Amino acid sequence: MLKKLLITGATGNLGAVCRERLKPIAETIRLSDRPGADLGQAAPHEELVPCDLGDKAAVEALVEGCDGIVHMGGQSVEANWDTVRNANIDGVFHLYEGARKSSVKPRIIFASSNHAIGYYKQTQRLDANSTPRPDGLYGVSKVFGEAMASMYHDKYGIETASVRIGSCFPEPKNHRMLSTWMSFDDFMQLIERVFMVPRLGCPIVYGASANGASWWDNREVAYLGWQPKDNAEQFRAKIDAEMDPPPADDVNALYQGGAFCGDGIHED
Amino acid sequence: MLKKLLITGATGNLGAVCRERLKPIAETIRLSDRPGADLGQAAPHEELVPCDLGDKAAVEALVEGCDGIVHMGGQSVEANWDTVRNANIDGVFHLYEGARKSSVKPRIIFASSNHAIGYYKQTQRLDANSTPRPDGLYGVSKVFGEAMASMYHDKYGIETASVRIGSCFPEPKNHRMLSTWMSFDDFMQLIERVFMVPRLGCPIVYGASANGASWWDNREVAYLGWQPKDNAEQFRAKIDAEMDPPPADDVNALYQGGAFCGDGIHED
Amino acid sequence: MLKKLLITGATGNLGAVCRERLKPIAETIRLSDRPGADLGQAAPHEELVPCDLGDKAAVEALVEGCDGIVHMGGQSVEANWDTVRNANIDGVFHLYEGARKSSVKPRIIFASSNHAIGYYKQTQRLDANSTPRPDGLYGVSKVFGEAMASMYHDKYGIETASVRIGSCFPEPKNHRMLSTWMSFDDFMQLIERVFMVPRLGCPIVYGASANGASWWDNREVAYLGWQPKDNAEQFRAKIDAEMDPPPADDVNALYQGGAFCGDGIHED
Amino acid sequence: MLKKLLITGATGNLGAVCRERLKPIAETIRLSDRPGADLGQAAPHEELVPCDLGDKAAVEALVEGCDGIVHMGGQSVEANWDTVRNANIDGVFHLYEGARKSSVKPRIIFASSNHAIGYYKQTQRLDANSTPRPDGLYGVSKVFGEAMASMYHDKYGIETASVRIGSCFPEPKNHRMLSTWMSFDDFMQLIERVFMVPRLGCPIVYGASANGASWWDNREVAYLGWQPKDNAEQFRAKIDAEMDPPPADDVNALYQGGAFCGDGIHED
Amino acid sequence: MLKKLLITGATGNLGAVCRERLKPIAETIRLSDRPGADLGQAAPHEELVPCDLGDKAAVEALVEGCDGIVHMGGQSVEANWDTVRNANIDGVFHLYEGARKSSVKPRIIFASSNHAIGYYKQTQRLDANSTPRPDGLYGVSKVFGEAMASMYHDKYGIETASVRIGSCFPEPKNHRMLSTWMSFDDFMQLIERVFMVPRLGCPIVYGASANGASWWDNREVAYLGWQPKDNAEQFRAKIDAEMDPPPADDVNALYQGGAFCGDGIHED
Amino acid sequence: MLKKLLITGATGNLGAVCRERLKPIAETIRLSDRPGADLGQAAPHEELVPCDLGDKAAVEALVEGCDGIVHMGGQSVEANWDTVRNANIDGVFHLYEGARKSSVKPRIIFASSNHAIGYYKQTQRLDANSTPRPDGLYGVSKVFGEAMASMYHDKYGIETASVRIGSCFPEPKNHRMLSTWMSFDDFMQLIERVFMVPRLGCPIVYGASANGASWWDNREVAYLGWQPKDNAEQFRAKIDAEMDPPPADDVNALYQGGAFCGDGIHED
Repeated sequence: MLKKLLITGATGNLGAVCRERLKPIAETIRLSDRPGADLGQAAPHEELVPCDLGDKAAVEALVEGCDGIVHMGGQSVEANWDTVRNANIDGVFHLYEGARKSSVKPRIIFASSNHAIGYYKQTQRLDANSTPRPDGLYGVSKVFGEAMASMYHDKYGIETASVRIGSCFPEPKNHRMLSTWMSFDDFMQLIERVFMVPRLGCPIVYGASANGASWWDNREVAYLGWQPKDNAEQFRAKIDAEMDPPPADDVNALYQGGAFCGDGIHED
Repeated sequence: MLKKLLITGATGNLGAVCRERLKPIAETIRLSDRPGADLGQAAPHEELVPCDLGDKAAVEALVEGCDGIVHMGGQSVEANWDTVRNANIDGVFHLYEGARKSSVKPRIIFASSNHAIGYYKQTQRLDANSTPRPDGLYGVSKVFGEAMASMYHDKYGIETASVRIGSCFPEPKNHRMLSTWMSFDDFMQLIERVFMVPRLGCPIVYGASANGASWWDNREVAYLGWQPKDNAEQFRAKIDAEMDPPPADDVNALYQGGAFCGDGIHED
Repeated sequence: MLKKLLITGATGNLGAVCRERLKPIAETIRLSDRPGADLGQAAPHEELVPCDLGDKAAVEALVEGCDGIVHMGGQSVEANWDTVRNANIDGVFHLYEGARKSSVKPRIIFASSNHAIGYYKQTQRLDANSTPRPDGLYGVSKVFGEAMASMYHDKYGIETASVRIGSCFPEPKNHRMLSTWMSFDDFMQLIERVFMVPRLGCPIVYGASANGASWWDNREVAYLGWQPKDNAEQFRAKIDAEMDPPPADDVNALYQGGAFCGDGIHED
Repeated sequence: MLKKLLITGATGNLGAVCRERLKPIAETIRLSDRPGADLGQAAPHEELVPCDLGDKAAVEALVEGCDGIVHMGGQSVEANWDTVRNANIDGVFHLYEGARKSSVKPRIIFASSNHAIGYYKQTQRLDANSTPRPDGLYGVSKVFGEAMASMYHDKYGIETASVRIGSCFPEPKNHRMLSTWMSFDDFMQLIERVFMVPRLGCPIVYGASANGASWWDNREVAYLGWQPKDNAEQFRAKIDAEMDPPPADDVNALYQGGAFCGDGIHED
Repeated sequence: MLKKLLITGATGNLGAVCRERLKPIAETIRLSDRPGADLGQAAPHEELVPCDLGDKAAVEALVEGCDGIVHMGGQSVEANWDTVRNANIDGVFHLYEGARKSSVKPRIIFASSNHAIGYYKQTQRLDANSTPRPDGLYGVSKVFGEAMASMYHDKYGIETASVRIGSCFPEPKNHRMLSTWMSFDDFMQLIERVFMVPRLGCPIVYGASANGASWWDNREVAYLGWQPKDNAEQFRAKIDAEMDPPPADDVNALYQGGAFCGDGIHED
Repeated sequence: MLKKLLITGATGNLGAVCRERLKPIAETIRLSDRPGADLGQAAPHEELVPCDLGDKAAVEALVEGCDGIVHMGGQSVEANWDTVRNANIDGVFHLYEGARKSSVKPRIIFASSNHAIGYYKQTQRLDANSTPRPDGLYGVSKVFGEAMASMYHDKYGIETASVRIGSCFPEPKNHRMLSTWMSFDDFMQLIERVFMVPRLGCPIVYGASANGASWWDNREVAYLGWQPKDNAEQFRAKIDAEMDPPPADDVNALYQGGAFCGDGIHED
């Protein structure tokens, strides 16, 4: 059991799920999001610590003393460069510097993204050894984060699971998500496994349920003992009824990153 | 849902299964077999179009207007060269020329065969990247068909799933088929998936159920979302009771293609 | 069904399990262990033949006439060199010479061990093509045995399944065994499959149940049709309750071979 | 040294080179081309045997008694189907039937082509395990020929080297050929090696010189001892002086098959 | 021949070499370095444009109109985060935005570094598919740059060769450089090839000469036609005479990144 | 430079070559062979220490104080089990125990053999990751030795290069040796590199010159900087003149181990 688990990005959808469901794995949960975000009331086992990820000193203070970190904070979709850089470039550096300097060496789950490999085709099979192929500035920032995790592991022994999250929602919303969906249950089980396995190393994990139409192979990280239970196929009929599949030459049918692979996303 | 699905080889065993079970996926089903074959009565949603695959004009007319094709027509076991060439060499060329010239670009399921890779040993594991190793003239004709499919995809954008069918029968008939069996249910689900996936590409699929003793790995085509449900192991006790397994040095124990790998099959 | 199955190491824990459960696959079972070991009373279908594996003539007599051998005899944990050599080096040579000279060509299950690959890290994924990385004299002797099996297969056609047994106990005893455990049921099913498959070849099989946290991939030997049913995850909560997991820098968390990877084991 | 070497396609450019340079490796050379082609005068060590590859009996007579065959006959560029089929489909079948029935088991060099893999991109690296990706009817016919060679090897023990010839001319003629060029010297050395190696098997060989800008890796057939000596780079300056390189989006810059990868080549 | 070649980092050692030697491949060379650096006198074919890579508008103006870019500007060794980020994170983004907006689509050589993969061991063999393993903030910034290049290629068609430069000096200076050295001649030949090949794509190239003791395999980019001529072995005796090799447990003997893999480099 | 280099098997052909040529790399050379072998006169820089490899105490004394070992002692061709075991099983264990206990940690060259992988076909390409496939008791003993080296490296940090020697003679003697030959010059250069490289690890090296018809790929150990210079092709014409090549179905044409792959070699 963790002494103190830091959850960044705690007011997001996934943050709220983590806040509720990860209670059993930590004595104290420190919840953070950007200053001004509504973190609500702190329960007795909670600490609320708003923090701008671009503020190095603040992030280092945020990380201090935590033995577990679920880093979902930062920019989570494509955006202009200043936004991406502040949250996902500087922010990740600050987080790892905090981890390095902390009195307790934390284990980290880094919310990477399928957009780090978004330009692979949907007919390709990827695993942990697939080289990056980001689909935008956001995706590039996730490759950066994975590289930072790798370096702090090799140089300082800080263990991170970089989870290339597909689509983590209550249920898949379109045909592409039949391949990329990760249920909350499966994600929570993954988080547990990452914190419980005696030795983590610095793995790349594809964050998806046991979907029938998967593009991703987690064989290389079987040692984690993560066994996702859900399968997006149970929602296929519903999605088929609600919408047409994308045309075969649409980016949503062609690339793993879907709409992020369209042209001109980050004009500024 | 398809507008018009062409099923060739419609009077064969598999053809009859397709005729009945694929009703829900197409508005109209055009059924074909060689002239003189008994196609029975046309149901209201059916068209009966006898056709010699060796007749180019006839095949082009047959294909015209169909947006889906299940090509099971042709010679389906080893035979002399004239028979194999007429049906499986010329016939396949005619089919693809028809597809290229058609007013509607069809998606195609090409009934390839395990005999395209029949000379691999039963102790070897194959996947979609395994190079051909045909076990007779019939197997060579299937390699030819896969190559034709590949070329029409690269050059004209016609998508084909080449299915290296193992043994598609109501149940496995001998020990070898415990590895190669594909149930009708699983094959029908595969056909559905091939027509429903937004983008197909031009994959090689091994046509076998989820058999416990499989030689084939469909990992590379997981994106299809095909999840076979049956397992030939349920028939093992029955087969063990009915017959002895083949001796260890018998072609039925040695090669994936089984009896087709014997010498002298196509003497003429 | 086998005519005569030889089980060596019959008084060990696994030997006792085999003695009871393998009754249905052989007409006669010949049970052996070192002279002086208590083999108990022979049932009507049993023969009791004590034998020192270091005695060539005796081993050859032991093997004569058997069409199946489960070779679990020999030294089964790290020991000094004389012990390991007598049982696992000389003993294995004697066994294969016996097999070569026997009037009946036997099929063999060789109880190899995870300690043949013990120095791989727990974060690595192995399969049948992984090169050896033994963790002690015992592990080296198992590499030797696998090599002997390979040579007698290539030169004399004797088929062996070398099973790199993980941890075969009624249930896993510690966190490492959540990855390495093989249930008795799964092992017995493996033995059956090895003797029943028409052609065995000379495969390397990882002897573990369908554990959620597995390090080993048996994909290359799927042709055996072995489908382990058990999963050590069912014991995780119990083990978590009974003991702390090993620290991340402990050999039990770092290497697949666990405690065997400590320094100085075989001093003599 | 061969007793009788058959060279088909003997009036072609390559045929003429072979006719002259292969003298030292055979006692007798049987030269063939389609009826009506000008085979010139027979030297004392030569036999001239015109033959239509589409005529089974004639081809079988042609092959009879030859212990070596260099099969360069057939259609050597894209053409309409009837032409390709007669020469490269039927013709190859006839050749292999002749080899099977011959009183002498011949070793064969089959002139396959880079157009069997023409749709791979020029930025991709291929080797003998690369699956086919033909770029037209001609390319498909070469895949067929390789499959036929493979089958006759596995079933009848006839050894063939399938040589995926790049561009075999006195010198490269354009920028693409800086990658695909094979000098006559290097080709002749390959032919010698194929006939001299004690055991050939049935390899796929890429027919190119030791070009600095190669796309192809012959590592898998190093056992042949073929060491090409020439390098198309010596002609780069000349080609640069004579012509512009193709634009980056031209099929001559994009695909290995070059111009054959354009659309609509085989309209008929 | 290029119309206008931009060389950033032009006052560095490599910049000076490029300035002199790349004259023949461009009509005009635009030379840039940080404001205040001494770019010397402009020759008639030269333009001198000082520019802070952290200044987006300035970089975009710098890039405008250039059809070739050799991007050696930026921080070239480990440094504190602000320095690395300004030059190598922001700077690279600015460069690619400039390329995207430019009236001429440039082809780019991105000076990546062996420090992008520095934590691989010296006993490991890498190729273009090896995943990143950076050895410090500098190395992480190079992984970022490679990812940015990949994304601008996939999304906007801008071609980049990311060159993981080893050690580019007049001669190797220590034992590690016997593996990592790239001569100026070989680098200049690489630059030429990158600009001359009709289609570049977005390759990863290891920037080293044909060293006898290489760790890196450029097989995947053989299509470039780059044939390095030099071999660091010619300097081995000299280095052996001048210094002892590093001890076996020194980072200079253990890791490919050498001294960069020491602990605590980027404290700030 | 080494302080004291131990050469075992010093009276053999290779031993004599080493004795003479390795003078420059060690201050003192300790020469050993079985008691009774004629080690001749000791030069001033030499020590002569006869030793039975089966005598543990004697071997430990032999190894004491040496910082380099070239272990060519032991049985070097197929023999009966007692001979092989004494020299190559016990002998290797004794050597490594000696190395472990020595006051100086030695670096070791272990003379393994192509017979550790002799049952691979001559048409197969091997590298350092190829799993063992020994061709006799001698070959099995070499697999054992490689495993022992691996274990002492992982457990005790003793570095060994296991060299799978092909055929080390003044020149190749038959057609098979055109693939397996290693010249004395190339072997001596390999030994030098093994002792000079700062970090050796525990590599598998194929001991063959740069033969044109090689079966073996040393790519994985390029970091050693070994660049063999000789090529058996220079002797091809001579061998062709002296003897016929083996028939295609002879073990000398079929298997890498050649005559060792015949049946019945180690009868006793």
